[in-house]
Amino acid sequence: MIKRRVSPPLFLLLIGLGIAGSAPAGEFPDQQPQQVPYMHEMQQIIDRSLQDDYAYRLLGELCDSVGARLAGSPAMERAVAWAQQSMLAAGFDSVWTEPVTVPRWVRGREWARCTAPVPFDLTMIGIGLSDGTGAKGIEAEVLAVRDFDELEARAAEAAGKIVLFAPPWQGYGKTVRYRVDGASAAARHGAVACLIRSVTGNSLATPHTGMMRYADDAPRIPIAAVSVEDAGRLHRLCEGGATVRVQLMMEAENRGEVTDHNVLGEIRGREEADQIVILGGHLDSWDTGTGAHDDGAGCVITLAAVRLLKELDLVPRRTLRVVLFTAEEQGGYGGRAYLEAHRDELERHVAALESDSGGGPPRGFSVHADSTVIARIAGHATILDGIGDLGAGKVSAGGSGVDIGPIVKEGVPGIGHRTNTEDYFDYHHSPADTYDKIDPEHIAQNVAAVAALIYAIAEDPVSLRELAPAEPPTEGTR
Amino acid sequence: MIKRRVSPPLFLLLIGLGIAGSAPAGEFPDQQPQQVPYMHEMQQIIDRSLQDDYAYRLLGELCDSVGARLAGSPAMERAVAWAQQSMLAAGFDSVWTEPVTVPRWVRGREWARCTAPVPFDLTMIGIGLSDGTGAKGIEAEVLAVRDFDELEARAAEAAGKIVLFAPPWQGYGKTVRYRVDGASAAARHGAVACLIRSVTGNSLATPHTGMMRYADDAPRIPIAAVSVEDAGRLHRLCEGGATVRVQLMMEAENRGEVTDHNVLGEIRGREEADQIVILGGHLDSWDTGTGAHDDGAGCVITLAAVRLLKELDLVPRRTLRVVLFTAEEQGGYGGRAYLEAHRDELERHVAALESDSGGGPPRGFSVHADSTVIARIAGHATILDGIGDLGAGKVSAGGSGVDIGPIVKEGVPGIGHRTNTEDYFDYHHSPADTYDKIDPEHIAQNVAAVAALIYAIAEDPVSLRELAPAEPPTEGTR
Repeated sequence: MIKRRVSPPLFLLLIGLGIAGSAPAGEFPDQQPQQVPYMHEMQQIIDRSLQDDYAYRLLGELCDSVGARLAGSPAMERAVAWAQQSMLAAGFDSVWTEPVTVPRWVRGREWARCTAPVPFDLTMIGIGLSDGTGAKGIEAEVLAVRDFDELEARAAEAAGKIVLFAPPWQGYGKTVRYRVDGASAAARHGAVACLIRSVTGNSLATPHTGMMRYADDAPRIPIAAVSVEDAGRLHRLCEGGATVRVQLMMEAENRGEVTDHNVLGEIRGREEADQIVILGGHLDSWDTGTGAHDDGAGCVITLAAVRLLKELDLVPRRTLRVVLFTAEEQGGYGGRAYLEAHRDELERHVAALESDSGGGPPRGFSVHADSTVIARIAGHATILDGIGDLGAGKVSAGGSGVDIGPIVKEGVPGIGHRTNTEDYFDYHHSPADTYDKIDPEHIAQNVAAVAALIYAIAEDPVSLRELAPAEPPTEGTR
Repeated sequence: MIKRRVSPPLFLLLIGLGIAGSAPAGEFPDQQPQQVPYMHEMQQIIDRSLQDDYAYRLLGELCDSVGARLAGSPAMERAVAWAQQSMLAAGFDSVWTEPVTVPRWVRGREWARCTAPVPFDLTMIGIGLSDGTGAKGIEAEVLAVRDFDELEARAAEAAGKIVLFAPPWQGYGKTVRYRVDGASAAARHGAVACLIRSVTGNSLATPHTGMMRYADDAPRIPIAAVSVEDAGRLHRLCEGGATVRVQLMMEAENRGEVTDHNVLGEIRGREEADQIVILGGHLDSWDTGTGAHDDGAGCVITLAAVRLLKELDLVPRRTLRVVLFTAEEQGGYGGRAYLEAHRDELERHVAALESDSGGGPPRGFSVHADSTVIARIAGHATILDGIGDLGAGKVSAGGSGVDIGPIVKEGVPGIGHRTNTEDYFDYHHSPADTYDKIDPEHIAQNVAAVAALIYAIAEDPVSLRELAPAEPPTEGTR
């Protein structure tokens, strides 16, 4: 049976007209502003958000007074307390935490130094979840390679050495592989430690950390990032034929698991309180900088969005639940715990929105769902095009987010809030991810976009979960 | 007696025509290309320089294989040896060193940490020439002020505190005052240590050092820079009413004086070898980064400029002497020592050129001399306008440089080589002043500009020292 979509109430037929069911996976850019009964409210939400610095001030508290908040650490406990308090102060109907088992990784002290052919200190940071070097540290000759291919080609040279991966910046997705898998790749050939060029396209001697993973088939060796500057120098010295030696000292320790918490807060829906729209970001950060863009911004944008609806007395039809996840950075622990804790009410999750692309200017939403769902969201989002300079209302098919990934995989429509990330990776996972990098206007714009869209989704008489899948494209047609 | 200028040989009368003697102090921008007998050679020098990566490769050696080179340190000894060797390899007729007494300042280990209201590590660097904190360090409450005026207004609060100056970036000249004089200003009101916001307009958690000075009328307290990010956070926490405490640990020590060296190399003049044109930069750097822009660039640009003339068999009429000064960073020690060592031959110094504004695109020359001299230099420089994108041939009246300052004060025409310094202070005195920030094309352009101009000055049959001062403007006329 071919059914393009469930019939919506007649007055809503305009939403996504000409798009629903027939749109290709990809972008849905040219929506006409839709006449929906709650369009006036959406505009009211936008106008008010753009005047409001609540989220910006909240982010200042989180960055400056709480600061870095590594999952499983005492700092994260402070962050959890702060988040609960903030939700209560924002007038949420109920606020609670849910336990999440997370890795307890402790950085300790760390340093690295080039000892030959010329001595100099390296600007470095250990990679998260890496083992340490032991109290005596490691000193060894450096084998500098550009990429995995070069390592394979020179595998015979790696034994007993510190392998340095110095790939050029090729965007995050390609470059981050060295951080995640570099240690095991090097260890397979007998390396005793691994260094990587910091994963960034722009550096002023800035060290960037992040997550790594030990493969089962390789010894566990420590891994650290060095600044782009120092990685370049070591690489050039090696290429010039010098015997380069580095001392690496990392006290880092993996201390098993501890209980951490997701923080949740709700305003109950006006008519269908058992139907839930969730939105949020991850509360944890790395233990450097203050997690302003990653992901303090997402936390305050979503929290402030819900607060604003309450303030405006625009409590929507369905329940809005803000979820601030923990241990996203170590590998999405909070998101998986949410799935397990809420499996029995998953059918009542109408949609999930995640904001984890920093606080840059809003650039729309990337939706992981059937094309009928995407089209309906795109219809709602057209009004957002009036926010900011470009593309706040743009909706495209794509990934949603790490934290909501597990429930999206189970069928909940997933919406990733997008921003302009031009500068994002300059700061990402580094001591430069701080409040001074945040533009209050952009934060207000993001609140406007998220608040208005989430209101529409929670208010829409048609549930996104009730929209039938689009007809799959027939072979031979476009 | 009014004499506008010494009569030059007739065929040179075109140089500076309509400008010499009548030009106001200021810019000399609109010279017509001059027909001088050595114009062809100047163009040949330019063309060859732009094809040549010698200076760029030389800078790579200095930055990567020598690295940071604090005056008075073992690293500086390596730099001195490298410079001598490089001049010999470049075919200089004679190469020698001259002793300079310089401060021996040792950084040692150092760190700083905020302990309240929330603990976090500060990205910091001790300011050069600062005393240390003693082995136990200093822990005290922070008094954060924006500027000297606010400190004076709140002087009663400073006793026993660590004063943090967090001025916004207002350009180097205005902002650097806090680094130089901040410690004594704070100590006068009883502060126990001083922190400053790093002197830069752009930061990715980048600490910037530099020189400080203790006033005679204030106790000597330690001073360090913290990153723009951390200074902002401390400042905001204080402004929010928190009691902010910082621990500061600096092993820094002033260990009296040691003997360091200027490095000199000459190619002897073809006809008037006793007449000397000097050019150079400072070989020393701070002990962080690799002094690529400050002032490795100036050293290799001037060295390569002279080498190129030799290579092209264009040894000019007068002697060219490259001087690579030491201890500019600690306060111009090398420059003063040069004056003392060469006082008896100062009359034979026709001109002095200093390159100490980094390796950015060439932007002409700033000349400290009488306007007749400036006009003659401007006439020579017009041909340089063909180099690079903008203004390589621009000549203006202004300061010349710290190293040549002492001899310029004694009457030697001083020429400051200028570059586009848009990014310069992002790197300046920080671990980000490294070889990767150098554009080979810009270095070649700078060599072209310096080599061609210095050739013209050394070849010009009229000595710049023989040009009479311009007639001073008569009152009531313009």
